[in-house]
Amino acid sequence: MDNLSGNSISVGLIGCGIVGTGVAKLLAQSRELVASRVGITINLAKVADINPDTVAALDLAPGVYTNDAMEIINDPSIPIVVELIGGQGIAKDFVLAALNQGKTVVTANKALVAAYRDEISAACEASGGDFLFEASVGGCMPVIKSLRESLVSNRVDSIFGILNGTCNYILTQITQEGIPFKEALAQAQELGFAEADPTLDIEGMDTVHKLALCVALAFGTRVNYKEIYVDGITRITPLDITIAAEFGYRVKLLAITKNHGDCVEARVHPTMIPFDNLLSSVGRNMNAVKIVGDAVGEMVLYGAGAGMMPTASAVVGDIVDAARNIKLGCHPRIPAFSYQPQAIRDLPLMPMDEVSTRYYVRFSALDRPGVLSKIAGVLARYSISIASVHQKGRHTEGPVPIVMLTHEAREADIQKALEEISGLDVIAEKPMLIRIEDQNQE
Amino acid sequence: MDNLSGNSISVGLIGCGIVGTGVAKLLAQSRELVASRVGITINLAKVADINPDTVAALDLAPGVYTNDAMEIINDPSIPIVVELIGGQGIAKDFVLAALNQGKTVVTANKALVAAYRDEISAACEASGGDFLFEASVGGCMPVIKSLRESLVSNRVDSIFGILNGTCNYILTQITQEGIPFKEALAQAQELGFAEADPTLDIEGMDTVHKLALCVALAFGTRVNYKEIYVDGITRITPLDITIAAEFGYRVKLLAITKNHGDCVEARVHPTMIPFDNLLSSVGRNMNAVKIVGDAVGEMVLYGAGAGMMPTASAVVGDIVDAARNIKLGCHPRIPAFSYQPQAIRDLPLMPMDEVSTRYYVRFSALDRPGVLSKIAGVLARYSISIASVHQKGRHTEGPVPIVMLTHEAREADIQKALEEISGLDVIAEKPMLIRIEDQNQE
Repeated sequence: MDNLSGNSISVGLIGCGIVGTGVAKLLAQSRELVASRVGITINLAKVADINPDTVAALDLAPGVYTNDAMEIINDPSIPIVVELIGGQGIAKDFVLAALNQGKTVVTANKALVAAYRDEISAACEASGGDFLFEASVGGCMPVIKSLRESLVSNRVDSIFGILNGTCNYILTQITQEGIPFKEALAQAQELGFAEADPTLDIEGMDTVHKLALCVALAFGTRVNYKEIYVDGITRITPLDITIAAEFGYRVKLLAITKNHGDCVEARVHPTMIPFDNLLSSVGRNMNAVKIVGDAVGEMVLYGAGAGMMPTASAVVGDIVDAARNIKLGCHPRIPAFSYQPQAIRDLPLMPMDEVSTRYYVRFSALDRPGVLSKIAGVLARYSISIASVHQKGRHTEGPVPIVMLTHEAREADIQKALEEISGLDVIAEKPMLIRIEDQNQE
Repeated sequence: MDNLSGNSISVGLIGCGIVGTGVAKLLAQSRELVASRVGITINLAKVADINPDTVAALDLAPGVYTNDAMEIINDPSIPIVVELIGGQGIAKDFVLAALNQGKTVVTANKALVAAYRDEISAACEASGGDFLFEASVGGCMPVIKSLRESLVSNRVDSIFGILNGTCNYILTQITQEGIPFKEALAQAQELGFAEADPTLDIEGMDTVHKLALCVALAFGTRVNYKEIYVDGITRITPLDITIAAEFGYRVKLLAITKNHGDCVEARVHPTMIPFDNLLSSVGRNMNAVKIVGDAVGEMVLYGAGAGMMPTASAVVGDIVDAARNIKLGCHPRIPAFSYQPQAIRDLPLMPMDEVSTRYYVRFSALDRPGVLSKIAGVLARYSISIASVHQKGRHTEGPVPIVMLTHEAREADIQKALEEISGLDVIAEKPMLIRIEDQNQE
């Protein structure tokens, strides 16, 4: 393939939104720096976007812009294709078409990789391109590089991730300002930390996509991301966050996966994390991932999980890895999903009902004698033991909050118990449940 | 070179102390896991140590042990040599001999790499071996991989590192238990967190070695590690740590480097870090590194900086990287010191006198009227402005502590001022100075 003229390697960029613009900018501004480190000049040969306005500010040389992505994919002088359209639509066709031509593909598209793991893996295997997607989990941080390379000798035991900057920003604002969810969301939108349609973020699905990639890379298993339990942050109230703090916890949207040998636990939901766990200190729109391995113990990566330049940094890191491999003729160098294709297994996901953890439950109860004993009676019948009880102010006529922290209990049991308690005549509204994670403390 | 039989690659290990033993164990326990990920079996072909007792517990196959390291270096069937003797003595000869034969060398030896950067670089260039030393900075964490690979497009602006587990353990104990340095050191020695001769750790030289590597990798400059300013933790008292906490700071032995374009700031000393900086939460014997880059912003890595298995994890990560490259015939793949040899510069170190920072100064003064004004007068003459003053209890007959936090000031000025203040008749002993770092807050 005529892709190496002197020490320059050509890159084609498909999709020039925020991250795409960042990649074009970063390739330009780091051109000499990268050459001085790598000995290769990265040449942004083509930029494809359906809208020519998106590239107007980029000062591209004549002939670089195209409105036809296939022009990049079919150009034999471009060995590296960067897909930054996002989503599970047309991006899939472009990625697979490029891989099928033996090109190396770099992407930040977690939704795509989570959904089409098998197709991508097969295409890489058939034609020998590298597939790099560092920017799809944890933005700038080397989460994927750590799992595929640094920790290669580790049996991963668990991963805990704050993987969505929008949710972390909103939860931080609720915590620090005591404002309700809707107001925090509006602030986040105003500051550009949340999109106009924030559903994918606040309902947790973006985090699920990222967790699915971590599960695949850590455990070498196919996982259907649609089966991962997910609960977003929309129901979290300042009251819950305040009470959690009184117990020594912060509330974060956490992606959790644990290796049970014959099955994998994977879930995404608001989670109470004790203050002495480093993840509880991750504020604003920052991300962090804790990986627990049998040799390393606990390792944490922290950084910007989104944003134009941090994400571009991860994308360009991948581009340079790809360029080194192409220059030296050594690709595929690392299997896309960390394991050799024939070693990939089909470990079942642990059903959510069987998950065991500790719980925070807030009941809204009428202030009558015997309420506590009624609630406790139901919990006891489902073998849920109470670690502590906290009854907030009794000054009002209406319902009062009663908060309980449980010892470890089965999800099926707590759900059945809460359903039964909800039916009690002293209970005013649906109980609030937040799961607690304090097994892997710092 | 006859080094690839089937999909197995042979490794020779020189030095079988704690980390060497860990590497041998980890290679054995992760053999199938690594093969399933990488498609290569790593074969520990030879282990050299002058003392046969060290390998007794390892259950090595017959013929694997040797007391002659050159047997590994001269064996054409062993393409990867792992040096884990440590120190700047014989290890140097083995490393250079192996590199000169075109072998890939993996090491955890920061003292060696800091001292013989040029020789190592030249040997790699001449013969084409990879040189990998992830385990030499930050133990299990991918500090070197991040600087050489992930952040390749970033102009690094600064690095802040807690890089010595012994010091961090001792400082954590002084903080939490209020015990003096000597007692904390004795505890650390008892628990195996400090060596019998802890000089290299507690005087800061181990941290200097690691910082020198970060400087070289981040800025592409030759740096003489002996010129880096260093001050250890032996003078830190529980009183200073308590007062620091009252001001909202924790005391850590911090490695600091900043990019000033035409020169490099690099220093190692006890440093006050505000609570809201993630590094202040790094307790026990853990390590953390914050890298600030123009594209990523702040990125933090946290993990075990030492210990048998975490360090072994980094060494085996390097071995596998090397094995992938050898299998695919692509080495050297990444320049040892991150930059192309011809791009390496000779940036001067900023003289410590010219460094500007904020300071904590504790004076031990006689409790007489006018003391404060005398001290403040001297500081004012050296253009040092005071941010806050804190006078501890006046209940004693003897000298009382007076603590001042300064605004940013030049090191030369504060040193001259302190010398002058030390000469005042109201000052009972040499003032205590701790530098403050709160520019790069979380």
